[in-house]
Amino acid sequence: MSTRQIQLDSGGQLHHFISIEGLSREILTDILDTAENFATVGTRQVKKVPLLRGKTIVNLFFEPSTRTRTTFELAAKRLSADVLNLNISTSATSKGESLLDMLHNLEAMHCDMFVVRHNQSGAAHFIAEHVAPHISVINAGDGSHAHPTQAMLDMFTIRRHKPDFTSLRVAIIGDIKHSRVARSQIHALNILGVPEVRVIGPQTLIPPEASHLGVHIYHSLEAGLQDVDVVLTLRLQRERMEGALLPSEAEFFARFGLTEAKLKLAKPDAIVMHPGPINRGVEIDSAVADGPQSVILEQVTNGIAVRMAVMSMVLGRPPQSGEESR
Amino acid sequence: MSTRQIQLDSGGQLHHFISIEGLSREILTDILDTAENFATVGTRQVKKVPLLRGKTIVNLFFEPSTRTRTTFELAAKRLSADVLNLNISTSATSKGESLLDMLHNLEAMHCDMFVVRHNQSGAAHFIAEHVAPHISVINAGDGSHAHPTQAMLDMFTIRRHKPDFTSLRVAIIGDIKHSRVARSQIHALNILGVPEVRVIGPQTLIPPEASHLGVHIYHSLEAGLQDVDVVLTLRLQRERMEGALLPSEAEFFARFGLTEAKLKLAKPDAIVMHPGPINRGVEIDSAVADGPQSVILEQVTNGIAVRMAVMSMVLGRPPQSGEESR
Amino acid sequence: MSTRQIQLDSGGQLHHFISIEGLSREILTDILDTAENFATVGTRQVKKVPLLRGKTIVNLFFEPSTRTRTTFELAAKRLSADVLNLNISTSATSKGESLLDMLHNLEAMHCDMFVVRHNQSGAAHFIAEHVAPHISVINAGDGSHAHPTQAMLDMFTIRRHKPDFTSLRVAIIGDIKHSRVARSQIHALNILGVPEVRVIGPQTLIPPEASHLGVHIYHSLEAGLQDVDVVLTLRLQRERMEGALLPSEAEFFARFGLTEAKLKLAKPDAIVMHPGPINRGVEIDSAVADGPQSVILEQVTNGIAVRMAVMSMVLGRPPQSGEESR
Repeated sequence: MSTRQIQLDSGGQLHHFISIEGLSREILTDILDTAENFATVGTRQVKKVPLLRGKTIVNLFFEPSTRTRTTFELAAKRLSADVLNLNISTSATSKGESLLDMLHNLEAMHCDMFVVRHNQSGAAHFIAEHVAPHISVINAGDGSHAHPTQAMLDMFTIRRHKPDFTSLRVAIIGDIKHSRVARSQIHALNILGVPEVRVIGPQTLIPPEASHLGVHIYHSLEAGLQDVDVVLTLRLQRERMEGALLPSEAEFFARFGLTEAKLKLAKPDAIVMHPGPINRGVEIDSAVADGPQSVILEQVTNGIAVRMAVMSMVLGRPPQSGEESR
Repeated sequence: MSTRQIQLDSGGQLHHFISIEGLSREILTDILDTAENFATVGTRQVKKVPLLRGKTIVNLFFEPSTRTRTTFELAAKRLSADVLNLNISTSATSKGESLLDMLHNLEAMHCDMFVVRHNQSGAAHFIAEHVAPHISVINAGDGSHAHPTQAMLDMFTIRRHKPDFTSLRVAIIGDIKHSRVARSQIHALNILGVPEVRVIGPQTLIPPEASHLGVHIYHSLEAGLQDVDVVLTLRLQRERMEGALLPSEAEFFARFGLTEAKLKLAKPDAIVMHPGPINRGVEIDSAVADGPQSVILEQVTNGIAVRMAVMSMVLGRPPQSGEESR
Repeated sequence: MSTRQIQLDSGGQLHHFISIEGLSREILTDILDTAENFATVGTRQVKKVPLLRGKTIVNLFFEPSTRTRTTFELAAKRLSADVLNLNISTSATSKGESLLDMLHNLEAMHCDMFVVRHNQSGAAHFIAEHVAPHISVINAGDGSHAHPTQAMLDMFTIRRHKPDFTSLRVAIIGDIKHSRVARSQIHALNILGVPEVRVIGPQTLIPPEASHLGVHIYHSLEAGLQDVDVVLTLRLQRERMEGALLPSEAEFFARFGLTEAKLKLAKPDAIVMHPGPINRGVEIDSAVADGPQSVILEQVTNGIAVRMAVMSMVLGRPPQSGEESR
């Protein structure tokens, strides 16, 4: 079954959230609008809404990730759900239990949602294909394939600063080839109607298929940054590189690191983003990361709201109009 | 003090749950009936009841177990208790703190219940003997001694399919010698009035004392399965075997693995059970594990209800009639 | 900024809790009085108050500690807060994320409080200097510097038995040099007006600067215990000792171990305390630890109430008069 088909239920509502690819502009906009309703929850005295009370959400992490797990855990707790953290490397698989048996056991315990992180591309899709109909699966990053909630929090952050996607020029810098984040960002930007998406990086880190995605390829940071509204930097995924695709981090920084001088080539009101954690002095200079055009910490804040939105939507319990915006 | 005496308070109510042995048919039936009250909680929109709100339950796991810990944690959370997970190998004992000092410290923190898993037989009993009177201890598996909540969820599952224990013929297949599950199952079946309990396995895996438990011993799977109503398979506890009690897994499967062909020797409506996790192709064939007579995933579901029942009973707060069955 | 200044907000209220040093007698007494309001929560049927509902508290442990983490976690849960446990050695720092970036990310997630444990003296102060104004930091032990909540639970326990601090003679025995507990206790005793504080230990374990703290130094246990009201024993921090400061544990026990015979030198109604975990037969004899003058387990119980008090105070939500004492 295609990822598009598997993500929507028969009524066209979001049931799993595996990939941006194949979703409609309406669905993405719905996620962003729902997240707006949750954005104020984090600043209240009582940072909790009862929408998912009595639901059981399992963080199924086959790959360690403190940051992503933390934001999903906080989002779930602020929705009043019960959260179970399973770190699978130290778990039942060591007793020889197969992945599917483990999933069926969690289903039998009446869990409602699996938030899946895995170092294999396609893992979340595979799990979504095999779970019981009442369970929703959210992809929290699979190999180099997709990281859709990251892309949606990026879109949310962009929209808050640049409300009209159809007038934007957006550049993504760095290791496009290994980045699930970049892949999901490109799909989201295309679907939301951004007319010009650029990818910037050395030839070794831009995959040949990039051009099929409708992006413009630049191998010069200076050329690629010209007049852009949004600069999306990427973490250099050192742990994911095989072989010597790069001469050195110092050389990468010299050619593709985002400095204040280079950022001046973009529009004066351009915003700078990064999915974190940052390698300071490798893909971005501290002066930029901490500078006035950086919205990197806003991305983190927005990540909670966007994940609350997706979690409540896939369980069919988005906030009613006015309910969460009070 | 005998385990029987230690488990009941002066009013004859369950205070600890260490072992099936020595409990009355009334107590076991009471657990099953209480679990029926909780069985619907898992299917509600809001899977939570407030019975143990403000209680503190400690999962005291001296032996790793994702599955058992998960079910106890979910059961506790659905009763609205606060749960503390302590994995003791990575904890205070490395600072030289004695087990008893650790227990007394947890008592002093006003914890209400210890769910204990330990690789030494008798550990839960020892702890129950030494805790303060207001604390309840539940045995979540101790060495090769007992696993009473597993046995009760098995009895619950049997009763749902075969309501009259006094007319049943039940077979337990596999490594009886090392199995705390088998030991607890045999006691429960005897107490609940099952007239014929059989154990089936190679001579090396059936302990000499088995015959004292009133079971019939079979060394042939074909003979033992004849006309039984319930087939209880066991996990081959490879990690618990010392020395070469078995020629090979392949040979074990050839002689004692449950296949569709062999299952035909049992009654046509016989049910097949397994405590999990399954070694497919070792003690059970996938066609049987996933087949129409398998109730293995029901066991998992029922495990939550049975643990909720035991937890609420030992804390003296079972649901009132009608309260949880709504 | 001095630790005193950083701990209080502009209205003189406690905002961080990093060190006893520099706080006023009024603030310390306020903590003790607030803890009295929480002391009964642990004995209720429902051990929960809604004061910090919807707040997010992060246990930021850079050094493993089951016991301290557990008491903070229980205190937070009984205040109805959401708790996030981050064990940093196994976390984001392995991806090269700097400490400050991690803190700013947690801030951006709208966390409200960091409970910090670190093996470097000054770590909690450093973090308090760098967090956003809305976040409170509680020091749960930093190197050999301070452990202020431990000292306050000790003061609370003393006051329950000996209500007038200004008439007490208190002895602290053991490894003063490496003990953050002793350092915080001495400051608290001084501030609360205890007229005579003694430290007792071998020359190698009493730092030269001890005399500046207004304490009396004894190298003989017999002399130092004479007529004291309170005996504070310390854990022998074997893991923190560098080189051969001690001949052997047996010799330490012979000279400085607290036995029943030696305790007779103190006042007949003297109380004996220990921060735990105990090395039985090293710094204290079991007969004393478990004897009638020991209040060691009361300390553990009081630790929950004191931590609930500090947590509610730094977030500006102490219980209203009468609210928690019902």
